[in-house]
Amino acid sequence: MSGFSFVLLRTKRDIIQCVYSEEYAKFAISDLKENMCVVISGEVIAEERSPLGYEIRIFEVEVLSEPVEEMPIVINKNNVPASISVLLDYRPITLRNAKERAIFKIQEGICAGFRKYLLSNRFTEIHTPKIVFSGAEGGANIFDIKYFDKKAYLAQSPQFYKQIMVGVFERVFEIAPVFRAEKHNTARHLNEYTSVDLEIGFLNSFYEIMEIETSMIRETFEYLKQNYEQELELLNVIVPEITEIPVIRFNDAKELISKTYNRQIVDFEDFEPEEERLLCEIIKKQTGSDFVFATHYKSSKRPFYTMDTPDNPKLTESFDLLFRGLEVTTGGQRVHDYNAQIKKMKDRNMDPEQYESYLMAHKYGLPPHGGLGLGLERFTARLLELPNVRYATLFPRDIDRLEP
Amino acid sequence: MSGFSFVLLRTKRDIIQCVYSEEYAKFAISDLKENMCVVISGEVIAEERSPLGYEIRIFEVEVLSEPVEEMPIVINKNNVPASISVLLDYRPITLRNAKERAIFKIQEGICAGFRKYLLSNRFTEIHTPKIVFSGAEGGANIFDIKYFDKKAYLAQSPQFYKQIMVGVFERVFEIAPVFRAEKHNTARHLNEYTSVDLEIGFLNSFYEIMEIETSMIRETFEYLKQNYEQELELLNVIVPEITEIPVIRFNDAKELISKTYNRQIVDFEDFEPEEERLLCEIIKKQTGSDFVFATHYKSSKRPFYTMDTPDNPKLTESFDLLFRGLEVTTGGQRVHDYNAQIKKMKDRNMDPEQYESYLMAHKYGLPPHGGLGLGLERFTARLLELPNVRYATLFPRDIDRLEP
Repeated sequence: MSGFSFVLLRTKRDIIQCVYSEEYAKFAISDLKENMCVVISGEVIAEERSPLGYEIRIFEVEVLSEPVEEMPIVINKNNVPASISVLLDYRPITLRNAKERAIFKIQEGICAGFRKYLLSNRFTEIHTPKIVFSGAEGGANIFDIKYFDKKAYLAQSPQFYKQIMVGVFERVFEIAPVFRAEKHNTARHLNEYTSVDLEIGFLNSFYEIMEIETSMIRETFEYLKQNYEQELELLNVIVPEITEIPVIRFNDAKELISKTYNRQIVDFEDFEPEEERLLCEIIKKQTGSDFVFATHYKSSKRPFYTMDTPDNPKLTESFDLLFRGLEVTTGGQRVHDYNAQIKKMKDRNMDPEQYESYLMAHKYGLPPHGGLGLGLERFTARLLELPNVRYATLFPRDIDRLEP
Repeated sequence: MSGFSFVLLRTKRDIIQCVYSEEYAKFAISDLKENMCVVISGEVIAEERSPLGYEIRIFEVEVLSEPVEEMPIVINKNNVPASISVLLDYRPITLRNAKERAIFKIQEGICAGFRKYLLSNRFTEIHTPKIVFSGAEGGANIFDIKYFDKKAYLAQSPQFYKQIMVGVFERVFEIAPVFRAEKHNTARHLNEYTSVDLEIGFLNSFYEIMEIETSMIRETFEYLKQNYEQELELLNVIVPEITEIPVIRFNDAKELISKTYNRQIVDFEDFEPEEERLLCEIIKKQTGSDFVFATHYKSSKRPFYTMDTPDNPKLTESFDLLFRGLEVTTGGQRVHDYNAQIKKMKDRNMDPEQYESYLMAHKYGLPPHGGLGLGLERFTARLLELPNVRYATLFPRDIDRLEP
């Protein structure tokens, strides 16, 4: 407006509405450029119509640094007007948008909430190696690296280490990167993601792990509401109210989906992505819950360390947690008895000698235990109802994307 | 003792002294084996001579699981009586020793203290990729991996990403693994370690980074004293009192060491390990400080993103922090101006086009900024005065050790 402008000041957390007026400013508005780093002097004025309840009248400005080019993309509108591919190509600058920033402030809050819950429930935070001698999850989805004259791998999960650490601290957790060489390029897969892993000793059953996860998520949502209100509001996030999370057996869920939507079951060992979506739709309608635990996955589908169901060894004491149509957690009870673990490995034609250092924990005594892994980006994406997990990843890695 | 025994009960945090007596126990002491996982019923009795101020009389015991072999190594004595190599070979069980556990509880506390300080000082916690398109620190010490049909590397530091994120959140930090393909097999090197990285925008000078690090360490030590008293006592840790940390220029330090100990200067660009030790010895005598900042390292020795000293471009606005004889932090101010960064890269025969996505941050405006990286294991080892950084690493990685 003539002689009068709004200036947006981006700070650590807030984007502050400032007012420039020829009346009181001691500089020309043309001296300012987008993305300049400045020190301003001015007056803070209460202003109801501003999102923060105040605005700043700018009197003077000192320029600390300035960009060499104009922005190739608009970031000061509500949303960045770009395809996901452009959004990610220009990540260093598109992240400066208010809504993009809010996503990662909330992600910070999710981690902080989880950590607060776990530390106050006597879990010990650990740091385990990502360069490993053997894959924990098996299969082909593993990156290998040349480690001097040896062959090594990038950890698919901290599974072996967290089980070993149950023998040390009883309850442990780690929030750290994991690596999966998946060739899928979908809205739900990343080749590197942040895994929230926890492991609990002295379990009576795997249902206790689900109870702990339920409490952890419930308290984290409270933590978010208390500490990240402005970001939740900016992104219109509906934070679910959690009392209990419904539980359904995998087989029952498959049948329920099949009957409800008149769909043929094709994969008898896992959910298809569309089935995850449909199951959540049914559960939401029936119970109002945005979450559902599916339990008792087939033994053939679960790794060698998973405990089989005592009265039916074709099933396992395992679960997944689905959140608004997507699996966000895999967990279960583990085999703690040395001889039982050796037998299960041999039944799968695995060579226990290759896992000697891992099995040392079992050999010298491990309590009944189990745990889970939660994908931080998936969890963030579902909470914020983002259609692609990449939106909840600062710098995503997929088969086509290694940069920025 | 006849009809009477002490039983040590290892729990999440405490190792509890229990008493077995034929008088009241409803089982035979021979039913118990080391490393059994048990539920006990008994009576808690105040007992001044017990480290925790109480002991438990065991009435009944329920065995949940038991080891298949007797321990090959004694872990219930004060220290594990083994060489470092045996200690690490048997890590899954040697970590069950009380003193070994205390090391990693204190390490947890160091991270928690750092995080508390940083979050309350408006740093945003971030997660950046470890599979990267280019090394940040340069040199040969980088692991490469086959990333589908591309060549990629394991991150030597989150340097590029934390600088990019200064343009987003102004202050950021990350606590995550980094990877160095160093062939050195010394008491101070690891090939994978946990790096505490932070980066700060709107700096007036790099001395501000040192002030923030000083406050962070001071408050973390207070946090440890408040929350990890029993572990600090068990390991006889003397937690330094920090007021100010002395500062000395690199060149002056080299001369001081040379004069004090009548040593010839061989390496003019870096400290030899012995010189780090001697410098700390001098500073301790002169000032009582366990820490010392060395500043103004030579430009030739620092990476391309380091800001040169304005009145002497052969030097840099950089520092290291030495703690009880060992470098634990490297930091400094970075080049924030796009043209200045391009020039510095070209002077070093680097091709800026290969760093296009990193330089996008500079091109579209970055404030004056800088930061640091602190090695968590080194810091822990110096605080606890452990002679080898491996003692402060759960599962160390070195050129010879990939397992457990």
